[in-house]
Amino acid sequence: MAQQERAVRTRRAVLEAAAAVFAERGYAAATIGEILNRAGVTKGALYFHFDSKVALARGVLQVQVSNDYHVPRELKLQEWVDAGMTLAKRLPQEPMLLAGVRLSADLQSRDVVGSAWPAWADVTTSFLSEAKERGEVLPHVVPEETAQVFLGAWIGVQHVSQAMAGWADLEVRMSALFSHMLPAIAAPAVLVWLDTAPDRGARVIAEVEQASALAGAGQ
Amino acid sequence: MAQQERAVRTRRAVLEAAAAVFAERGYAAATIGEILNRAGVTKGALYFHFDSKVALARGVLQVQVSNDYHVPRELKLQEWVDAGMTLAKRLPQEPMLLAGVRLSADLQSRDVVGSAWPAWADVTTSFLSEAKERGEVLPHVVPEETAQVFLGAWIGVQHVSQAMAGWADLEVRMSALFSHMLPAIAAPAVLVWLDTAPDRGARVIAEVEQASALAGAGQ
Repeated sequence: MAQQERAVRTRRAVLEAAAAVFAERGYAAATIGEILNRAGVTKGALYFHFDSKVALARGVLQVQVSNDYHVPRELKLQEWVDAGMTLAKRLPQEPMLLAGVRLSADLQSRDVVGSAWPAWADVTTSFLSEAKERGEVLPHVVPEETAQVFLGAWIGVQHVSQAMAGWADLEVRMSALFSHMLPAIAAPAVLVWLDTAPDRGARVIAEVEQASALAGAGQ
Repeated sequence: MAQQERAVRTRRAVLEAAAAVFAERGYAAATIGEILNRAGVTKGALYFHFDSKVALARGVLQVQVSNDYHVPRELKLQEWVDAGMTLAKRLPQEPMLLAGVRLSADLQSRDVVGSAWPAWADVTTSFLSEAKERGEVLPHVVPEETAQVFLGAWIGVQHVSQAMAGWADLEVRMSALFSHMLPAIAAPAVLVWLDTAPDRGARVIAEVEQASALAGAGQ
């Protein structure tokens, strides 16, 4: 058990080191040597978990989508907004997510390594499909199509925020994106109840962390 | 006069060669040698017009925005849609525009070379400002803010279309972007009249080219 736990930790340390290097240098310029140095593990330990640079990049891409900050809400559309806004808050601070963005957008490496884009689009599709079943969404909305528009828009908003503000305005830009797309998606009676403020992500994260601290204290 | 005309042509040939090389290789990997070869001009001729790779890239970025396919319409918002849809039609076929997209998005070179993003955002801002004066736009719309959202979304839609379809679905994606953003922008009575179909750009271009052919025949 202790050995298995150590293996999980080593794997995570390697993945985090790989993410940091991919986020900084991109796929082509990243080397296993630098990832090794950064992870502080032996070559054998790294290769036990990941047998190549491709495997490392795929490992990073596999952990892009999580439910860590998902809180059930009365409106499924609010859950969708929350997913986007918590990601906008976390992205600039988390090398794992930054690496996912960079690897996914890399036109050279993505044929071999893959991309988190399909997984992101799936997240939107499934929120919108559930929202549609509940009547929160305008009748003509096709979840898969809207998910593709949102995917493109979200990637571009990331890019512009990175280039023009070093990520500092990502939450503001993301909030503006939601308020420019939701009127085409949400039923009017739902639209007025959605919270798309720039600090929405920070508030959801605080809520989840507080709940988790209370749960920890209660143990 | 003949000499001046020759100079204009040489400058254009050099710029088109530079655009093709920047579009294919990106800024860092492009060399003046390859641009020279492709342009078929002498080194002296190239350096007469552009004294460095930076100057060539800036030259390409300066010709990104044009009025070539602008047709006045009853609705300013239709003119804005037309600008976006004609660009979506032309982009995959024109190295000059592809180079503009690639250079503008290049996080390494854009600090030195610049970017067409501000010029694109200005185009949207000015269409939306005029549309607002005419009452075509919802009262709460701030043209500069909407222009920033649209800029990000448009860049991302380009990127996704390039990565996933080699640009083949750019018009479909762009049309979907407009239909997902316009309900947040256009007054309802205007919204129903806007043509955002995927082939809108092709139709506007055909209209302009036909008018220009007729004008030529009438001379």
